[in-house]
Amino acid sequence: MTVIEDLIAALGADKVLTGESIGERYRSDASMTGRFLPLAVLRPSSVEDVSIALKICDRHRQPVVPQGGLTGLAGGANARSGDIALSLEHLSGIEQIDTAAATMTVLAGTPLEVAQRAAEERGFLVPIDLGARGSCQIGGNLATNAGGIRVIRHGVTRDNVLGLEAVLADGTVLSSLNRMTKNNTGYDLRQLFIGSEGTLGIITRVVLRLRPLPTARLTALCALETYGDVVSLLNSAQRDLPGLSAFEAMWESYFRFNAEALKLAFFDRTPPFTVIIEEDVAGSDVDRERFEAFLGKAFEDGLLADALIAQSEKEARAFWSVREGHLMDQLLPGLVNLDVSVPIGQLGDFAVDCETALRTRFPAAHVSFFGHVGDSNLHVAVWIDAAGEHDLHEIDAIAYALVRQYQGSISAEHGIGTLKRDFLDHSRSEAEINVMRRIKAALDPNAILNPAKVIPPEA
Amino acid sequence: MTVIEDLIAALGADKVLTGESIGERYRSDASMTGRFLPLAVLRPSSVEDVSIALKICDRHRQPVVPQGGLTGLAGGANARSGDIALSLEHLSGIEQIDTAAATMTVLAGTPLEVAQRAAEERGFLVPIDLGARGSCQIGGNLATNAGGIRVIRHGVTRDNVLGLEAVLADGTVLSSLNRMTKNNTGYDLRQLFIGSEGTLGIITRVVLRLRPLPTARLTALCALETYGDVVSLLNSAQRDLPGLSAFEAMWESYFRFNAEALKLAFFDRTPPFTVIIEEDVAGSDVDRERFEAFLGKAFEDGLLADALIAQSEKEARAFWSVREGHLMDQLLPGLVNLDVSVPIGQLGDFAVDCETALRTRFPAAHVSFFGHVGDSNLHVAVWIDAAGEHDLHEIDAIAYALVRQYQGSISAEHGIGTLKRDFLDHSRSEAEINVMRRIKAALDPNAILNPAKVIPPEA
Ligand SMILES: Cc1cc2nc3c(=O)[nH]c(=O)nc-3n(C[C@H](O)[C@H](O)[C@H](O)COP(=O)(O)OP(=O)(O)OC[C@H]3O[C@@H](n4cnc5c(N)ncnc54)[C@H](O)[C@@H]3O)c2cc1C
Ligand SMILES: Cc1cc2nc3c(=O)[nH]c(=O)nc-3n(C[C@H](O)[C@H](O)[C@H](O)COP(=O)(O)OP(=O)(O)OC[C@H]3O[C@@H](n4cnc5c(N)ncnc54)[C@H](O)[C@@H]3O)c2cc1C
Repeated sequence: MTVIEDLIAALGADKVLTGESIGERYRSDASMTGRFLPLAVLRPSSVEDVSIALKICDRHRQPVVPQGGLTGLAGGANARSGDIALSLEHLSGIEQIDTAAATMTVLAGTPLEVAQRAAEERGFLVPIDLGARGSCQIGGNLATNAGGIRVIRHGVTRDNVLGLEAVLADGTVLSSLNRMTKNNTGYDLRQLFIGSEGTLGIITRVVLRLRPLPTARLTALCALETYGDVVSLLNSAQRDLPGLSAFEAMWESYFRFNAEALKLAFFDRTPPFTVIIEEDVAGSDVDRERFEAFLGKAFEDGLLADALIAQSEKEARAFWSVREGHLMDQLLPGLVNLDVSVPIGQLGDFAVDCETALRTRFPAAHVSFFGHVGDSNLHVAVWIDAAGEHDLHEIDAIAYALVRQYQGSISAEHGIGTLKRDFLDHSRSEAEINVMRRIKAALDPNAILNPAKVIPPEA
Repeated sequence: MTVIEDLIAALGADKVLTGESIGERYRSDASMTGRFLPLAVLRPSSVEDVSIALKICDRHRQPVVPQGGLTGLAGGANARSGDIALSLEHLSGIEQIDTAAATMTVLAGTPLEVAQRAAEERGFLVPIDLGARGSCQIGGNLATNAGGIRVIRHGVTRDNVLGLEAVLADGTVLSSLNRMTKNNTGYDLRQLFIGSEGTLGIITRVVLRLRPLPTARLTALCALETYGDVVSLLNSAQRDLPGLSAFEAMWESYFRFNAEALKLAFFDRTPPFTVIIEEDVAGSDVDRERFEAFLGKAFEDGLLADALIAQSEKEARAFWSVREGHLMDQLLPGLVNLDVSVPIGQLGDFAVDCETALRTRFPAAHVSFFGHVGDSNLHVAVWIDAAGEHDLHEIDAIAYALVRQYQGSISAEHGIGTLKRDFLDHSRSEAEINVMRRIKAALDPNAILNPAKVIPPEA
């Protein structure tokens, strides 16, 4: 029997899409770089289904690509020719909310936003949040160790997972559904699966840590003259604002482009650096006074050239609309958005060097910077007119060579997938990559789980 | 050549203690269960030394026990007959403090307190703290994933490490000295070594995340009637006190014993539950008002029977002296201190069941409870007169059987080492233990690193 026949016999035909019934959406994640439709799409509706499916695929040495919400930006969920996709879309639902321990147990295919709403109804916050919340799944968030917009306060996905269950390549169900903050009983297997982009196991269940739902939020837009001032302001915000929940910096050209596109003006002139500071608070006058006093002090200390405190939700959203820069994507089709990390103190120099290096090769390039500075995470938005595939590769190569020089990370939050695999050695040593290979071989000896992703082949 | 001769030839005799020159202190960690002096004690003073030493030992199939500050409580650093110890004591020192990024790079043998002081001098807090701070080493803290007294605010050790360097059994130096919050470039090898108790590699360097140094601290001692009230108070403290830095509960018999021993009286009668709440604050009147308002509201809501706010450092220390209970150890020699986790909502029932079970077997036992309730961590203090080895094992067996039933952890913070190895299956499944074995074999194929620790032998 072929692998497909075996799968249909074991799971039933309704859980195994083949041929015409495979929709176009299974071709690619949000990077839009996927070229092939999978040979088949499996849609298990129980953990047991996942286990049965992997056991069969392992026996047939059949490569399997896990697919979550397909919002990934690294090509990690794309099938190669002949790969079978295993979609988690029918393995969805909230299983438990423990209000005493502030934990939530969900099936991995649950969309992030569904989990967020369920938590909110009980007065809690899911500490993970990102723009793709409506489509991305909790399992995909774990598999990519997603970052997002709450990291400065609550950490990355990795920091908000207490337990998980994963199915190994041979079908073994590995349940580590810990619900406690402290558990030092042997190796932390959970952390191995988080961020492994589907190459070590298929995540089926997750225990998330919940946080109290903030009752109010204060937002300021700050104008600064130098990157050194940005770092000083960050350090004092971390010291003085206990609920600091965002610290987002925009470099001059990024702010100018997006504010103009949105027809918004905030300051007399575009400052060299604009920062959005946000704090989650209980909502009393006391909190607002402290926030104002913090900005007042920064002004006195000469860190701030100017600052605006949002007087309404609407005004706060206007600040954020510049930061989100959705019009930039529309006005500059084909815009490249690099997602890198560099130690906070060096981010300013990195941006200068990066612009110079890109402009040397592409004099007409539009290069602009913005980022979660508090998380050492910089996004580089690069646009050149009518860029071809080769140009795009050159942009990557120029920027990542500089990241290597700064001992930074070529992927702060989006992961490696297929798109950054050939650059992995810019951020990880040969010794590290070899240990990754050994771990991969120990858990997936037949290399059926998302092969050719993340880890480059041996030279 | 023997392994010792090879080691002396490669490292020099001064780095290889043998025979008479091996001091008594290398016999045991703080559990005082070590029986053997090591065959030799290696004291490398560079990462290269560690690499050379392991390469030689690996070739000779010579077991090696890493020794940090020897304050561990699980027997993890104890040598078996014929084991060689590798002590990190000469691999010590602060290498870098990056004030912009708030990170510190240290050699693994640096005592925790030395790192804490160096950070404080620059206005930062090392987010790890525990009673053994004077002797325990950063490397040991990582190897055991130490908990301690700041976990509710800053997380366990695992949450405060950005990067590390470890030497593998074959001498490979694996450098993952990341200094950034976000770095999604392949597997998170760092997390594998944290909490692995020296069985996967020898940690040689660590990048710690620093936090701002709090300028003031508010402390209250609260009297409560039921465990349900304790949980409700915890939930509101997490919601309303942004700098919440301790939430420590004492059950009635624990509080009574220690307050009486210290000749301290706080309330008219000993309440069923006493809780210490602490908040790190900037030190303004505003902070104090909010703290008082929080307690006032809890009182109105009927959660609190009584509460005292410390009016001085000295008074706060008095609250803590009851919690620390040092006299209990002295007055009840041979006191057993179990360190378990149970989901927060069930801790109250667990304590009742645990006392009943222990008393059924040992009617005269003194059983009392205290714990970092906010971290789901309970300590069970058990004393029976003239307990023999067999009694001690029975106490473990009774308590851990109940932990298994509650799906808790038999080791919240101290680790598995040798002392809890035979109970590992009470908290981890056979599938999990098998994956641990596979990872161990992948990284240390000759099983020279701390063999016979953590992972039980195959049945
Ligand atoms: C508008 C937009 C905004 C975004 N913002 C952010 C952001 O702020 N921060 C950020 O980090 N990312 C961001 N992303 C990227 C993306 O949303 C995240 O990477 C997300 O976590 C992917 O989840 P997914 O379910 O869509 O995974 P997919 O794209 O389906 O898969 C991603 C990877 O995980 C694997 N995988 C998926 N599910 C599982 C599973 N259950 N078990 C094992 N492996 C699995 C896949 O094989 C693939 O390698 C954004 C994307 C978009 C389109
Ligand atoms: C008074 C007192 C209070 C304590 N309070 C707490 C507490 O609140 N929370 C808590 O979690 N623990 C506590 N402990 C336990 C202990 O202090 C911690 O486990 C500590 O982290 C151990 O560090 P160490 O350097 O002494 O390690 P050791 O005892 O020397 O070793 C512990 C384990 O780690 C391994 N190891 C040590 N260094 C390395 C290295 N560089 N690389 C690889 N493996 C290594 C050893 O082989 C051993 O398995 C306390 C102990 C005492 C005596």
